[in-house]
Amino acid sequence: MRLLGLDPGLRHTGWGIIEAEGNSLRHLANGAVSSDAALTLSERLVQLYEGIEEVLADWQPDEAAVEETFVNKNPVSTLKLGQARGIALLVPARHGLHVEEYAPNKIKKSVVGAGHAGKEQIHAMVSMLLPGCKIANEHAADALAVAICHAHYARTNRNLRRATCMAGLSK
Amino acid sequence: MRLLGLDPGLRHTGWGIIEAEGNSLRHLANGAVSSDAALTLSERLVQLYEGIEEVLADWQPDEAAVEETFVNKNPVSTLKLGQARGIALLVPARHGLHVEEYAPNKIKKSVVGAGHAGKEQIHAMVSMLLPGCKIANEHAADALAVAICHAHYARTNRNLRRATCMAGLSK
Repeated sequence: MRLLGLDPGLRHTGWGIIEAEGNSLRHLANGAVSSDAALTLSERLVQLYEGIEEVLADWQPDEAAVEETFVNKNPVSTLKLGQARGIALLVPARHGLHVEEYAPNKIKKSVVGAGHAGKEQIHAMVSMLLPGCKIANEHAADALAVAICHAHYARTNRNLRRATCMAGLSK
Repeated sequence: MRLLGLDPGLRHTGWGIIEAEGNSLRHLANGAVSSDAALTLSERLVQLYEGIEEVLADWQPDEAAVEETFVNKNPVSTLKLGQARGIALLVPARHGLHVEEYAPNKIKKSVVGAGHAGKEQIHAMVSMLLPGCKIANEHAADALAVAICHAHYARTNRNLRRATCMAGLSK
């Protein structure tokens, strides 16, 4: 199962691709899609859209996961992040992928084992969990953490969806 | 010049199409694209994307305008709105349209003449400015107001862009 993790941001949206087989994880690629701050907002969103679409085309993941966003900062940043996040959620869904969302605490807990880990701890654990992986930048590191978190929950989620679907069919 | 106005929202995104020739405005169509609250967030954003794309295909506007969002509500609503707004800004830009943004006060002022008009006043003025137009719902009314506002500013904006472009070329 090939998983795409996304850490949305208007300036930089991090992405990471891992392969999850049972309990074993393997790193495939990571990076960030950036938008040009000199352009209009709508043009920047198009850049994010096309950048994420390129990652999908290059790596053909089976499922995607996006970090849920902190909303306790200033409202202007929340709105900006929301706009970028809309694109991160949209693109994989438009390509037929199931898109899961995870709260930052859940991601930290599944990567480091504690819900309040710092950036450095998370990045160190991502490198340990994905041996040999060269992390492009902090956005890519966060995206890989989302993908790892999804790998931990994906099997349970898939079984739940299957059960819900079958319960629906048997009504 | 055919203009698309958009009033973004996750549940309902209003849209309105008008034709602007010099100072005269003509109503062409209006409505709202809705998303199904029972679906996942990413699936709902796909619904908005496809709905807006359908409006573009049906009406082939030349330019688009989107209402700037109030950010002084609760942060969870701001984030939700941001996500829907990202889609409203993205779709016309992906189709090569210039997308302008207008603050709510600017829209009210250009439609009613005052920056603090109520919903009813705006809707009444939209109906007066676009005779014969049947407004589908409040979201569509707001979207038509955005389109009207854009019609007022569009010529100035286009001239500015042209001048900036020529200034750039002559450097």
